[in-house]
Order: sequence, then C-alpha cells, then structure tokens
Amino acid sequence: MPIDQSIIQARVDAGFKRANFIADLGIRPTACGPGWVEAELPILPRHFQQGGFVHAGVQSTLADHTAGAAAATLLEDNFSLLTIEFKVNLLRPAQCETLLCRAEILKPGKQICVAEAEVFALQNGEKRLFSKTTVTLAVLPVAATLPR
Amino acid sequence: MPIDQSIIQARVDAGFKRANFIADLGIRPTACGPGWVEAELPILPRHFQQGGFVHAGVQSTLADHTAGAAAATLLEDNFSLLTIEFKVNLLRPAQCETLLCRAEILKPGKQICVAEAEVFALQNGEKRLFSKTTVTLAVLPVAATLPR
Amino acid sequence: MPIDQSIIQARVDAGFKRANFIADLGIRPTACGPGWVEAELPILPRHFQQGGFVHAGVQSTLADHTAGAAAATLLEDNFSLLTIEFKVNLLRPAQCETLLCRAEILKPGKQICVAEAEVFALQNGEKRLFSKTTVTLAVLPVAATLPR
Amino acid sequence: MPIDQSIIQARVDAGFKRANFIADLGIRPTACGPGWVEAELPILPRHFQQGGFVHAGVQSTLADHTAGAAAATLLEDNFSLLTIEFKVNLLRPAQCETLLCRAEILKPGKQICVAEAEVFALQNGEKRLFSKTTVTLAVLPVAATLPR
Repeated sequence: MPIDQSIIQARVDAGFKRANFIADLGIRPTACGPGWVEAELPILPRHFQQGGFVHAGVQSTLADHTAGAAAATLLEDNFSLLTIEFKVNLLRPAQCETLLCRAEILKPGKQICVAEAEVFALQNGEKRLFSKTTVTLAVLPVAATLPR
Repeated sequence: MPIDQSIIQARVDAGFKRANFIADLGIRPTACGPGWVEAELPILPRHFQQGGFVHAGVQSTLADHTAGAAAATLLEDNFSLLTIEFKVNLLRPAQCETLLCRAEILKPGKQICVAEAEVFALQNGEKRLFSKTTVTLAVLPVAATLPR
Repeated sequence: MPIDQSIIQARVDAGFKRANFIADLGIRPTACGPGWVEAELPILPRHFQQGGFVHAGVQSTLADHTAGAAAATLLEDNFSLLTIEFKVNLLRPAQCETLLCRAEILKPGKQICVAEAEVFALQNGEKRLFSKTTVTLAVLPVAATLPR
Repeated sequence: MPIDQSIIQARVDAGFKRANFIADLGIRPTACGPGWVEAELPILPRHFQQGGFVHAGVQSTLADHTAGAAAATLLEDNFSLLTIEFKVNLLRPAQCETLLCRAEILKPGKQICVAEAEVFALQNGEKRLFSKTTVTLAVLPVAATLPR
C-alpha cells in the first residue's frame, strides 16, 4: 500500500532533525517522494579538507543520510533502518556554495534495501557531479527497548 | 629511502590540523610510523545519529582521513594524495566515550595506494570493532598552482 | 577529438576476443558507442552456483569486463586500462536464459576512469535488474615491454 | 555451541562441489575451521585476461565463494547464505601457477555476516597479495520450497 505524502514528509523531516550530526553540519531535506529524497548543505569553511575542498567525510555523510531517508520513505510501520555498508566514488574535487544530494532506491526489500546517492552542485544550471555513493541498508523490526 | 620519523610526525600533525573539518569534529592523531597512523575522537552528543549512536558519517570521516594520513607517511616529496573511493562496513552500532582508529597501508604505490582503517573502542582493554574501511588513493604530483 | 565508431567497434571486439576467460565463459559484445558497451552471455548450467542461480562471479566478470570495454572506447592511443577495484551489489537471485549487461562511463579521466555496469535479463520486454557494479580503472601509458 | 570440525569439513566440501561454476573453474578447498576457509585454483590459460594475467573475474569468484564458505562454517542448521555485495581491490597484476585464497569472518551475525578474503600466490615461501575482497552476506532461513 502506498504511503501518504504527508507521512513521507514528516518521516523525512524527523529523520534529519533528530540526527544531531546532520543538524550540526547544516544538512536539511528539500524535497521527497516515495523512494527518493533530496537534501542540501550550505558550505562553510569548517567543511573543508586541507586543500580548500569539501571533505570526503562531509560528502559521504550527506550521501549516507539522504540514502537512509530515501529508504525510510518506503518503510512499513514498526520497522527501522541501519546502514550496513556504503561505498563512495569521489569523482572530482568539490568546491561550491551549496552541496546538493539526491538519493534514490535502487532495490527496495523486506530485509535489505539498496540506495544510490549523487552529491553535486549546480553551475550555470548544470549538474556538476562530485561523488556517487551506493548504500546497503538492513530493514529491522523496531524493538521496544532500542533507543529511537 | 625510508622517511625520518620526525618528518612523518610533522606531516601527520599538519595533515590533521590544516583540515578544517577534522579539527572541527575534534579528531587528532595519537601515533604514527611508516605506513600507519592512529587517531582518536572524543565523542560528543553532536556526533550522534537519531538513535544515539555515532553517525556513520563520523566513522567514515575518521577512517578516510586517518587512511590518507597513513598514505602520506610514505609519500615522496612533491607528491600529494587524493581519495578516489572508499568503502565502509558498519559492523555494529557505535557507542563509546572515545572513538579510535588505526589505518595501515595494504599496498603502497607510485600512482595508487590502498589503505585499510579500523574504527573501534576499547572496552575493558579489548578492541570492540565498529567499522572497517578500505580506501583507494591517487598519488599525484603537486602542481605549483594547486592549493596546498 | 571524438573516436571513429569503426575504431570503437574494433577495440571492443578485440577486447572481448583476446581475453581467454571471457571467450571461455561465452561473453560477447552486442553494441557499443563512445562511453558505453553492451554485452551478453547465454547461460549454461556450468554458470550456476549451488542453488541453480547464476554465480555472483559470473555476474561480476561480465560487469567488470564490459565496464573496462566502455572505458576503452574513450581511450587515447598508446594508453591502456587496468581495473583498480570494483564493487557489486547483488540485488536478487539471477535466473534467465541470457544475461545482459550495459556499462557506461560515469566519469572519464586522464588517470582514473569510473564506470557503472548493470547486469539484467529481459522478461516480457522489461528489464529485471540482478546486479549493479561500480568499477574504478587506472589509465596507464602502454610500455613497449608490457604484454599487450 | 561450536560446530564439529567434521561437519564444517563436510559443509565446505559440499559447498564447493555442488557449485557448477566453481567446479568448472577448478577451484577446490584445501583447509577450513570455524570462521575460515582456504582454497586454491591451478591457473590455466583459459583464466587469463587479454594481457596474460589472471582475470579479475576469476579472482573475485575465488574470493566470493571462499568467503561464503567461511561464513557457512558458522551457520546454524536450517539457515543459508546469500552474498549481498562484495568489493575487491586489485593490488597488482596476477601471474602464478596456483592462485590461493584465505577467507576469514570479520563479523559473524544472525542476519548479516561480513567476511574478508585475500587472493595471493606463494613465491619463494612469501605471500604475494594480488587482491583483497570484503564480502557482505545475508543469513536467511532455509524455506522448504527454495532450491538448495
């Protein structure tokens, strides 16, 4: 049964707000639907590595979290998600004012869900792709005693 | 020709201090030698994901940066490093006071260098492994006009 | 300067025929263009794993080789390619008469080239995706003394 | 409860013999214990890529299958394994008479199991490492109607 858009929206918003590290970095969701989420991060000097580019860790945090949110849009009640592994290819040094991310589900599943996330910037209206990440997530029943 | 330990130490220290994102998170190197680096991160609430565990992005930032530092210990003069890709397996939810990382070079090379990094905590003197990352780096000549 | 289609075709054909393991398995190219290659493998019982599905090793061989061929379509003269690493997600058990693969270049480069390959079958005209692979290749000058 | 060595041995032997692709390539197990398996492959010209080296697909088949066997040594009755994803770093071109592999479990689990596999040759008694693979496997209950 498809999940209502208002429920999807609420889940995605909560998933970004309640994650301290994501709020601390400045990452926020911008759009979502069943099986996909978009997010953005205004870049500050504190996000840089030694060469003045956005650190790979910033890119992978944005990709992993947005991918998890995309998986959450398809989740049945009383289930939660955990990233098992991810793999990121850094395609070119990243310099921009705002880092964008779009994550989509490649394969939904009752136990395993696979998502892909692109991290990019817009330059003159064109997408400049900085990295691409594949994320594998486990779908787990929510146990009452686990921290939410 | 082996590189002097004081040069290794200076390189590693600089590589952590001059990377804003690493300094901002609180990551610092604790030991190093030819082909390996150890680092640590005192965990604060801002490093958490929504469930109260250390965010996967924090773990992968620590792993990627420490792996790059391990590669830098073997680097010849006038060459620099760039992460091409990394892959992290998250083995169990991470909760601890201090996150530790040890990165070692699996295969040095004049063009490509491969490193592995373990992220873990010590509990009663035993290593509790949270994640393992493989990092592939490109070795590039330093061009005078590139930001250092 | 774009490479002529007849040169691309000749390169791709040679790249499949001269690789013993590829010829032995029965893999052959079916179409190609600048930055992409398609290939197929008629499935025989010898390609199975213990459950009667196509072995993951067969899928990854098909994906890796087709990705390398896609990279070769963009290669300048006197350069060759070497797979540095690949990562494959197996999305569902694979059963079919003919395994298909399409590989595309995600990011071309003078030193590093990244390709993606989908392995799938057609069922009632629809693509049934079995696995997706990301391949990172090094672009290397051809040395006269290296085996071709 | 630890599993008897004779049961481990029987499982590993069956896991290699009943997989057509593995038998066809010539891969056979040589030793095993709880959480680890070793295997070997006598190299023939049909295993080569175009340059006369062992094809990456041969190495990854050997690594994936041996890793799955290592996971099987820890499996409880009525459960089976499926590779979700693997990632291989090819460290140097592989030329040898016999390709060896040792796979070990990095993290056992009731739902997800992670293994590492090294593919190498012995030269003058020393290990020459050709590739390293990380394999993530799902642990699934055996349903009566699934092909074994």
